[in-house]
Amino acid sequence: MHTVTTIDGLRTARAGLAEPVGLVPTMGYLHEGHLALVRAAQERCESVVVSIFVNPAQFGPNEDLAKYPRDIPRDLALLEEAGVDLVWLPTSEVMYPEGFQTWVDVSEVSQPLEGGMRPGHFRGVATVVAKLFNATEAHFAFFGQKDAQQVAVIKRMARDLNFPLGVVVVPTQREADGLARSSRNVFLSAEERGQAPALYRALIAAKDAYEAGERNAEKIRRVMLGTLAGASLAQVQYVSCAHPETLAELDTVSADGALLSMAVYFGKTRLIDNLVLEGQ
Amino acid sequence: MHTVTTIDGLRTARAGLAEPVGLVPTMGYLHEGHLALVRAAQERCESVVVSIFVNPAQFGPNEDLAKYPRDIPRDLALLEEAGVDLVWLPTSEVMYPEGFQTWVDVSEVSQPLEGGMRPGHFRGVATVVAKLFNATEAHFAFFGQKDAQQVAVIKRMARDLNFPLGVVVVPTQREADGLARSSRNVFLSAEERGQAPALYRALIAAKDAYEAGERNAEKIRRVMLGTLAGASLAQVQYVSCAHPETLAELDTVSADGALLSMAVYFGKTRLIDNLVLEGQ
Repeated sequence: MHTVTTIDGLRTARAGLAEPVGLVPTMGYLHEGHLALVRAAQERCESVVVSIFVNPAQFGPNEDLAKYPRDIPRDLALLEEAGVDLVWLPTSEVMYPEGFQTWVDVSEVSQPLEGGMRPGHFRGVATVVAKLFNATEAHFAFFGQKDAQQVAVIKRMARDLNFPLGVVVVPTQREADGLARSSRNVFLSAEERGQAPALYRALIAAKDAYEAGERNAEKIRRVMLGTLAGASLAQVQYVSCAHPETLAELDTVSADGALLSMAVYFGKTRLIDNLVLEGQ
Repeated sequence: MHTVTTIDGLRTARAGLAEPVGLVPTMGYLHEGHLALVRAAQERCESVVVSIFVNPAQFGPNEDLAKYPRDIPRDLALLEEAGVDLVWLPTSEVMYPEGFQTWVDVSEVSQPLEGGMRPGHFRGVATVVAKLFNATEAHFAFFGQKDAQQVAVIKRMARDLNFPLGVVVVPTQREADGLARSSRNVFLSAEERGQAPALYRALIAAKDAYEAGERNAEKIRRVMLGTLAGASLAQVQYVSCAHPETLAELDTVSADGALLSMAVYFGKTRLIDNLVLEGQ
């Protein structure tokens, strides 16, 4: 497995890779969800590049950039074992050198939900992903459904800017009790961890209501809130029942289906999860 | 010579081109300046793609989008004669389909000079050029020094977003009397056309002063204004003596040199020109 840091190093290593090339962008501290992305990339591509970069541009001033968990040696061991071809570990200076001033803004899909709670977050995401796409010249890039709005933003950007690359979405990986895998789960106390599966249970309860015929979006949101109310440590930031592409909040779930999503604090740890209601 | 309109058509035709591929982005109504870009591309590349697209996103609400000159049959004849391999003529619907919402913003270099006079102009330029780069997968793209700030914005964008493409700048093409070639020159009356070389004469006068030792930027600007004052029909919008990369106005020309530039109206026709003072 090759590892590179600089853009020049990346381009040189990239030139030797068999095509098509798959890219798995990560912020490191890898878990089973990332490895599922790697396996999906290996199924579709001849070579797989994984980037590890905790992107400052997508963290707000009051967010957890400094304490975002990091363990590069463990990450490299996992990726080597997984058979990854190339790992790119750029520094902040490589990604945002002095004079950097170009930003990619996906204006509408970035606004609601996570974008509403985290101003500037998706501008940082879209910009760094555009850089990753260009720098790696990947043919496919793999993202987890876990970050549903990120997926919507990146798909929109890739289409709008005509990137010569396919965006592939991989289902959310979950623990046995339903908790979506996330690098942030490590921050949960034992008691919080015990209650955290309430997010997935709330999504399933809403899906059950939908499948039983409920189409009123506000009632579907109330089903989610009702389940979350059973977790005493959960502080709900939002629950959403939105259009699956525009992410606009719905009154009624139409034949387009819906994206159910939520953000919930357990102590200082912010968890998100989501589930797509397929149109019927 | 192949011509294509859609993205799919472009990708198919592009796949058959010998590499490296050179891109010459244009808004059509071609003149000798564009053909010089084509020749530069042919010298450096195995295949040359020319795009013709009058980009609505870079025109302000009070600007000349509707009356920007167009003559596609003549353009195609010139490009075929020049030996161009592929011409891409996207429609506005191809470039900005329903739901389009992604914008590329080069924040600082876009602000002064033309950007100050034309708010949003360089956001439109950067966005469409990012699309052209991605859609054509060109290895080199060729731009004229005539649009000096556009060159600065695009170079910055290409570097910041890690586009796998080299930006090549080609000297301004001029008429025998020094007037920079431009599609807009066609709008000049005979009398205006007679006075229009004052822009180039003003730049040369400033350069002469610089070479004679003048380093005070305000005095250099006054030399340009003095020459332009001799053209009775000229209405000066700005003259500038700025840093060649940041485009910030200078007090003193340092060893970095300077970009001299100006925008001048003759009637309703807005002309721009520029000249680089090499650092010494």
